Amino acid sequence: MEDLEGGVDFLADERKKAKFDVEAMKIFWAGSQHKFQVADRMARLVASDPVFKKDDRVRLERKELFKGTLRKAAHAWKRIVELRLSEEEASQLRFFVDEPAYTDLHWGMFIPAIKGQGTEEQQRKWLPLAYRMQIIGCYAQTELGHGSNVQGLETTATFDSETDEFVINSPTLTSSKWWPGGLGKISTHAVVYARLMIDGKEHGVHGFIVQLRSLDDHLPLPGITVGDIGMKFGSGAYNTMDNGVLQFDHVRIPRDQMLMRVLQVTREGKVVQSDVPRQLIYGTMVYVRQTIVYDASRALSKAVCIATRYSAVRRQFGSQNGGRETQVIDYKTQQNRLFPLLASAYAFRIVGDWLNWLYRDVTERLQANDFSTLPEAHACTAGLKSLTTSFTADAIEECRKLCGGHGYLCSSGLPELFAVYVPACTYEGDNVVLLLQVARILMKTVSQLGSGKQPVGTIAYMGRAENLMQSQCSVKKAEDWLNPATVLEVFEARSLRMSVACAKNLSQFSNPEEGFLELSADLVGASVAHCQLIVVSKFIEKLQQDIPGEGVRPNAIALVDAFNYTDHFLGSVLGRYDGNVYPKLYEEAWKDPLNDSVIPDGFHEYVRPLLKRQVRTSRL
Amino acid sequence: MEDLEGGVDFLADERKKAKFDVEAMKIFWAGSQHKFQVADRMARLVASDPVFKKDDRVRLERKELFKGTLRKAAHAWKRIVELRLSEEEASQLRFFVDEPAYTDLHWGMFIPAIKGQGTEEQQRKWLPLAYRMQIIGCYAQTELGHGSNVQGLETTATFDSETDEFVINSPTLTSSKWWPGGLGKISTHAVVYARLMIDGKEHGVHGFIVQLRSLDDHLPLPGITVGDIGMKFGSGAYNTMDNGVLQFDHVRIPRDQMLMRVLQVTREGKVVQSDVPRQLIYGTMVYVRQTIVYDASRALSKAVCIATRYSAVRRQFGSQNGGRETQVIDYKTQQNRLFPLLASAYAFRIVGDWLNWLYRDVTERLQANDFSTLPEAHACTAGLKSLTTSFTADAIEECRKLCGGHGYLCSSGLPELFAVYVPACTYEGDNVVLLLQVARILMKTVSQLGSGKQPVGTIAYMGRAENLMQSQCSVKKAEDWLNPATVLEVFEARSLRMSVACAKNLSQFSNPEEGFLELSADLVGASVAHCQLIVVSKFIEKLQQDIPGEGVRPNAIALVDAFNYTDHFLGSVLGRYDGNVYPKLYEEAWKDPLNDSVIPDGFHEYVRPLLKRQVRTSRL
Ligand SMILES: Cc1cc2nc3c(=O)[nH]c(=O)nc-3n(C[C@H](O)[C@H](O)[C@H](O)COP(=O)(O)OP(=O)(O)OC[C@H]3O[C@@H](n4cnc5c(N)ncnc54)[C@H](O)[C@@H]3O)c2cc1C
Ligand SMILES: Cc1cc2nc3c(=O)[nH]c(=O)nc-3n(C[C@H](O)[C@H](O)[C@H](O)COP(=O)(O)OP(=O)(O)OC[C@H]3O[C@@H](n4cnc5c(N)ncnc54)[C@H](O)[C@@H]3O)c2cc1C
Repeated sequence: MEDLEGGVDFLADERKKAKFDVEAMKIFWAGSQHKFQVADRMARLVASDPVFKKDDRVRLERKELFKGTLRKAAHAWKRIVELRLSEEEASQLRFFVDEPAYTDLHWGMFIPAIKGQGTEEQQRKWLPLAYRMQIIGCYAQTELGHGSNVQGLETTATFDSETDEFVINSPTLTSSKWWPGGLGKISTHAVVYARLMIDGKEHGVHGFIVQLRSLDDHLPLPGITVGDIGMKFGSGAYNTMDNGVLQFDHVRIPRDQMLMRVLQVTREGKVVQSDVPRQLIYGTMVYVRQTIVYDASRALSKAVCIATRYSAVRRQFGSQNGGRETQVIDYKTQQNRLFPLLASAYAFRIVGDWLNWLYRDVTERLQANDFSTLPEAHACTAGLKSLTTSFTADAIEECRKLCGGHGYLCSSGLPELFAVYVPACTYEGDNVVLLLQVARILMKTVSQLGSGKQPVGTIAYMGRAENLMQSQCSVKKAEDWLNPATVLEVFEARSLRMSVACAKNLSQFSNPEEGFLELSADLVGASVAHCQLIVVSKFIEKLQQDIPGEGVRPNAIALVDAFNYTDHFLGSVLGRYDGNVYPKLYEEAWKDPLNDSVIPDGFHEYVRPLLKRQVRTSRL
Repeated sequence: MEDLEGGVDFLADERKKAKFDVEAMKIFWAGSQHKFQVADRMARLVASDPVFKKDDRVRLERKELFKGTLRKAAHAWKRIVELRLSEEEASQLRFFVDEPAYTDLHWGMFIPAIKGQGTEEQQRKWLPLAYRMQIIGCYAQTELGHGSNVQGLETTATFDSETDEFVINSPTLTSSKWWPGGLGKISTHAVVYARLMIDGKEHGVHGFIVQLRSLDDHLPLPGITVGDIGMKFGSGAYNTMDNGVLQFDHVRIPRDQMLMRVLQVTREGKVVQSDVPRQLIYGTMVYVRQTIVYDASRALSKAVCIATRYSAVRRQFGSQNGGRETQVIDYKTQQNRLFPLLASAYAFRIVGDWLNWLYRDVTERLQANDFSTLPEAHACTAGLKSLTTSFTADAIEECRKLCGGHGYLCSSGLPELFAVYVPACTYEGDNVVLLLQVARILMKTVSQLGSGKQPVGTIAYMGRAENLMQSQCSVKKAEDWLNPATVLEVFEARSLRMSVACAKNLSQFSNPEEGFLELSADLVGASVAHCQLIVVSKFIEKLQQDIPGEGVRPNAIALVDAFNYTDHFLGSVLGRYDGNVYPKLYEEAWKDPLNDSVIPDGFHEYVRPLLKRQVRTSRL
């Protein structure tokens, strides 16, 4: 966006060198003329509004920082209402405010959970309240002891047939909910995941709508203990979010607050499977992960934009005859590090757009009871989420290093961008755990080759196994790599061969699960190769269409004890000598100043008016 | 260190699995029985002293944080004096306080600069003042516009023969000193690097001792503008350090404050080369970089210790028949990611110890006027500094990810460890720039092969070029890799072949400098291979001895403009649309609260008493 305060463009010479139509590319990047205009308008709106100023963020202590976020969230909502913004516009506005806030979880997780898992009746009751922000919700799944393994959650929801209620309880310390954004200080409600218990029998993990705080005085309801879990990576970053801790002491909720779209509990305490397919849940996961891939392209592009411009400005060495020094962007090492990141930002955007299409395609099919493409779509989004977020996290740090010493200053924007981005590698599925899921479908596909079952979607290439196993790389000289078909075939052959090799090694095991564990490192490698192929293939497709131009194991702890460090020196709750991690983590949490008061500063000015409907309802 | 608060050891089962003598390994890690005892005593001393508490660090705003650091530095000094600690003990005590402070630069750069570059007379005058902390100094080399390219520094030191003084001046904004630690708020003196000018003629960049602040009231002296450059990566991290900005408006200093060990300026303004060899400066660089390699092993080992212990505590999935879940350290993927880092922590320690020997060897030779091993030793330390710091930075972040969601909490210690560590990739030589220096000596060595000149030290293997170019890898099955000689030969052959390939490509260029620029990415690859070989060879040696058991170029800016981001959205001074970076960076700096007052909080309580000698002098 043109933004020439003093009127002088120090990169003008650079801009003149362009060989394509920048305006056309803006529209390509945005997705359409319409999307471009909405984004452009919302970005300017945010940029010109003093309330959304963020350059002082890293200098605020936590309470001030958090209060500022509450102020911004309230102001955003006010603008959305005043300007009668559409859902698309509102979402773009929130995106450009560029500060993690409780509203992200309310709109991004709480509402979608009710939409996806609630019955129509439940949706009719809860969604309007949520849309108007009369209640604010969060998504409470992860516990202190369990994140990746959702089936291991310990919170219980026990049916009491006498009162027709569920009793939500946290039986252990490790069952405390831990991490949910918006929970710590703000949410009035939560979708809580708990183990359904009826008459002493377990029925798996399900979602329950639980009210946490009074709508009168915002105090936690009886039986509920709730707070913020403390400082996270970086000095502004994700510390604007009240990630929380939550414990239940036999809290009662009406039966109809279990989300019963898929599984119902009757008045008599019978468990009834509805005719809605369970697979719908996977549809939601495809949606959420698709947005994460899209976000990867945004974070990466931001970092690359900063590093590229600065590399053109920065000069170091190479002055000849008293002339100016060389722009660091002209060093081949700088280019070699930076340009692949730039290309990847575009590639991830293209992949994100394609995943959006895939999500819509899967949804349509699900509605028509066609589940055939779901496993592949699910694996594909899981894998791409993992690949793009890991790559982007590393790339942001590389961009920071590309800026030399100055990249280490917060004013460069890069430290905060890194700190706020990295959790994407962990939430919505730990990246390694996700790759292991991808490996399962790859191994299944390979095992079925020759059975007549044709692989679909992004795994279709495996149907050409015979060819790909034998194909010889046609590259003779460097330029041959410029042929996209060659590149594609090489990536396909590589991916297939890695999968086939794993499958062969797996078949040596009498117990396949044991084999899977033993070979997991190689399996992760095969998954990565498969996901890289997807990115390369979607990128190539688009370019052609649209764009111009172990031994250690028993000794491990001893080996680190030998370093002889004190707990003080380590300064880490997770690295304590005694391994007594959880209670200490819990203790630590309460030390955060946000826990000094039950009602956080700013609540009365910025949150309460929303809850009290003192701001008029929007078009949403 | 055993530290069982509640008396229960949750890792006891793990500890029982050890197959070697942990006590013996502690001594190996420390370097000797004596070093072990000193480190152990100092670590306990710090850990048990409430003043050195650091777990609240991330929750403090900058001024409180900084004041805390001043308090700790003063307390450390008090303990050093009271306990009459030796230099070795004092340095260990400061190390365990584990908080960047102005004292690091005073002891680590200011004093060594005077020792290395000052005449005996200068040393006699300044060192006692510095040793007693009657003056506090910093090292002011880097400027806003120049870091890597020291020869490009713009600050001038012009000789005025009338008054027998040098006039220190900052002619441009980009000539402002920028980054020196301890400069912002505390230092009374600095070694300032400036371009020596006599009678309009330039004589290169030299060091000058300049007083910055009054020893009476700590106010900056006339002509001096000085302040802190603002927040850096992380919320505690390096923000305890007052990295500063400094401008001179024709500040006069006596002629004898130029550091004249190597080059002297006479009363008449004549420039005289002393009989002390210039190469001594490289000796100092070998020293400083050797300590950085050693520090890499410390940072890495800290991260690995945290991740390893937590991986043994953390359980996720794999519960069978209602039993406990699998410890995540038992997953092959976790091991595959973690264990090589653990091995590297040891390897870097071994390399650090060896570099310490190398430094002592080089120093002895220099004193005997033997410069033969210096180029190789210099390249070797530069390369190893680059390799070990880049590896460690990435490894700390990998350790954080290995801890799942909880690694993102500051209470895990890993975010701060990362944020405080990463600048090691940039200071004391940008890692890529250093690798390019290594490449020069590799190319020179290859070009001289067959000339009869035998390569020495870590490059000696290149003397076996003929063998290594033809050798065939003897590995037939996986276990063959367990033979250290095989591993070593493979690393040697790889490194040599990469260097030879680069040299061959270089010889195609009529202008060698052009060729070097063009091929720089490959040259960096060859340097990395060479440095990896050094690490592998030193590790193997020790294990056997001692241990028990263009296309894009013109379009680059346009491609990122196409993202259509506002400066507000980017939130980055370095990424501004107008490229007008420097003044804005400068402006930003003054916004830090530390710049609110000329005298920082805590100065009167914790710094002034030192300066005023209200604490008794030590044995140092
Ligand atoms: C910023 C942030 C925001 C969050 N927001 C929310 C929220 O709003 N609501 C919510 O409910 N949760 C939230 N979370 C929690 C998040 O979803 C979990 O942290 C995540 O699912 C990872 O689980 P974990 O922390 O238990 O990691 P773990 O599973 O403990 O991972 C530790 C290590 O074990 C490895 N590992 C685990 N299982 C296996 C296996 N089977 N095979 C091989 N290796 C394995 C992992 O790869 C990792 O290296 C948030 C987390 C963060 C960091
Ligand atoms: C925490 C911290 C503490 C510091 N403390 C001090 C201190 O006490 N005193 C002091 O004087 N300084 C200090 N510095 C400054 C530090 O020494 C410089 O930042 C460092 O030398 C890197 O220089 P630069 O910032 O100019 O990077 P630049 O050289 O601008 O690097 C920018 C990019 O250009 C590339 N590049 C530069 N030259 C070349 C080339 N010839 N070929 C290929 N690529 C190239 C680099 O690889 C990098 O990617 C400190 C810095 C930090 C971050």
